[in-house]
Formats: sequence, C-alpha cells, structure tokens
Amino acid sequence: MHIAILTFQGFNELDSLIALGVLNRVKEPGWRVTLCCPEPQVTSMNGVTVHAQSTLEEAASADAVLVGSGIRTRDIVATPGLLSRIRLDPAKQLVGAQCSGTLILARLGLVSDIPACTDLTTKPWVVEAGVQVLNQAFYARGNLATAGGCLAASYLAAWVIARTEGMDAAAAALHYVAPVGEKDDFVANALRHIAPCLPA
Amino acid sequence: MHIAILTFQGFNELDSLIALGVLNRVKEPGWRVTLCCPEPQVTSMNGVTVHAQSTLEEAASADAVLVGSGIRTRDIVATPGLLSRIRLDPAKQLVGAQCSGTLILARLGLVSDIPACTDLTTKPWVVEAGVQVLNQAFYARGNLATAGGCLAASYLAAWVIARTEGMDAAAAALHYVAPVGEKDDFVANALRHIAPCLPA
Repeated sequence: MHIAILTFQGFNELDSLIALGVLNRVKEPGWRVTLCCPEPQVTSMNGVTVHAQSTLEEAASADAVLVGSGIRTRDIVATPGLLSRIRLDPAKQLVGAQCSGTLILARLGLVSDIPACTDLTTKPWVVEAGVQVLNQAFYARGNLATAGGCLAASYLAAWVIARTEGMDAAAAALHYVAPVGEKDDFVANALRHIAPCLPA
Repeated sequence: MHIAILTFQGFNELDSLIALGVLNRVKEPGWRVTLCCPEPQVTSMNGVTVHAQSTLEEAASADAVLVGSGIRTRDIVATPGLLSRIRLDPAKQLVGAQCSGTLILARLGLVSDIPACTDLTTKPWVVEAGVQVLNQAFYARGNLATAGGCLAASYLAAWVIARTEGMDAAAAALHYVAPVGEKDDFVANALRHIAPCLPA
C-alpha cells in the first residue's frame, strides 16, 4: 500500500504533513507513505525545505494519492508540463485533495460531476473551474475525497485508513494525534465526517 | 520576534510543523519562525528530511522557543553534549514544549515547580522526572507552556501569538487553519485553553 502525498514548491506544511503523520500511524507491512514531489527538494510557503520521498510519476502507480495545497497551486495548474505529470485514476486509486489541491483535481477534470471541499481562499477559483464547493470540512463519493481547512487534513488521512484498513484503524490513528483530554470527542467528530462517505 | 521550534532527529512532523504553520499566520515585520535543529538536516520519525533554519545555539537568543517532540527524546536527554546546547531562560523568553518536548524541559529543570502537559506515551517518563502531569491538552504559567497530543500544537502556537500579538491575532491564526464549517467552534475551544493561562 503506497500513499503518495503530492507536495509542490510553496506547499502548505500543515496540509501535507498532518496527512503524512496520521497515515503513518498505521503499522502494517508494506504500508508506505511518501512526500511525492516534482523535484528532489521542495520548499514550503514558509521556507521549510523537505526532501521528496517519491516522484510525481510514481503517483500514477500508488494505491492512494492525496494532493496537497500551497501558495503556488494556480501556477501549477497553469503549467501544462507540470500538470501533465500528474496522472490519477480514481477507478483504480483512492484520490483525495486538501484545500487548493482541489483546484488541481478540478483542472484534471476529476471533480466535474461531484461537489468538493476546499479552503476559503481557493473557493472562488474552484467555483470558476465549474465545481460545486461545499461549506464543510470533508466530502467523499466513491474513490474521490476533498477536504477544506488545513486541520481537516486529519479527516482526509483518516478516510484513506478507513477505506483500506477499516474504521477501527482510522479511529486509532486519530486518537493518537488528538489533544490529550479531547481525544474521544475529536475522534467522534472526525468519524461523523467520514462515516457517511464510505461505501455501503 | 524570532520563534525557534526545536526539531531533533526522529522528530514528530505534526508537533513541529503545525506550530510552524500556525505561527507563520502572523505577518508582522520582523516576525520569524524557524525550525531549529542540532544539525543542518534532520529526519523525522517517518523518514521526512527537513533543512534546519536556525541552530540550537540561536535558540538562546530567540524571543520564544517551542521544544518539539519525537521518537528519540529519551536519547536526547541522555546525551549531555546535546542537552547542554539547549540554553533556555523563561525569565527572558517564552518557552513551550509539545508532547515529549516536555521531557526536555523536565531534564533542564524548567518544570520542576509547575504542572505540565505531555502525550500519553511520554507521561511516565515525565512523571519519573518528578513533574506533575496534567490530563489536559494545554497548560501555561508565566512564560512556560506545555501541550499534549500532536494536534494541541495549534494551542501552543496560539499561546505564543496571544502573548506577543494579542488574542485577536491568535484567534485569526487559528481560524485560518481550522476545518471549514468548524472554524468558530475550533477557535472558541482553543481560546478556552489559552485564555485562563495568560497573565492578568
């Protein structure tokens, strides 16, 4: 199970790394979570440089792909040479997007017939791309999920875990990262977002 | 205003980078937030390599220092050559710790006479170091704050903002990162942790 978290120049640290941290709570053999970048190193919107753990091309064969967010997403979708390197297939993969990552899914034509979540800044651009934007933190239909607001990255990661390892595993991962003294409430709230979006 | 986030080999991505992301919502001139590391690069508990933005020695002159968490904290506190490079002075600096970072404050003797928060895994070691551990996400007294559970890193960061830029700035930073549709509830809950711990 390889989960690639697409992480571009100018990335939002919260969006990529909360998902990565939550997903890495699963300790199953073969479970692999990578920062998946267009270059060997990328630098965040706040100057944090990280090393890629997989290439954009490897995302095509990943079992799940989460598209991260950042301050350069509009440049990315306006760069055909970059956009064409992102090959996603929700028929074969779980595909999720966080905040402005939803704009990438929109430009790839993946959310043209389902509503989506994104952050408040990105919302007008996603609407402009013809997508219905929901005023909520998380939504999924089938193999496609979107989340809005940085800290909703934990819901997106938990959805991947729920879809592959089950709800108990998702709850355990969320419980671990939740604030002390608020763990049960946090898990219950997150699962309220995810549960209605799982296949019957 | 320099805020150094101490980030060691084996660091927990959530603890250092949630704080960094929230703190960077402040856009004041001279506001500077750095990953502060013992080496030019450090690799997280899940294999993510990041570049240091300041040295451990620079933390001594920072206006605020947050001690991150990770899987090697017990090694760090058992390494005098490393521990001696961490020079913190709560008389002159805001000092906070996240999860196992509290163990570092404990070994530096900074939380011997106030209770502290930490994560459930680290709790027995902090207790063993003679510190009273609270079953809550956040606590601060004076210039010293501690938080427990990865996602409580947003409370710790908001406390630094509240102490330096005021409650409105803290609320604005939290609002930005909160999940869409849950922003007001999230901010209110976070401020309930922080407000009672601010100086009169």
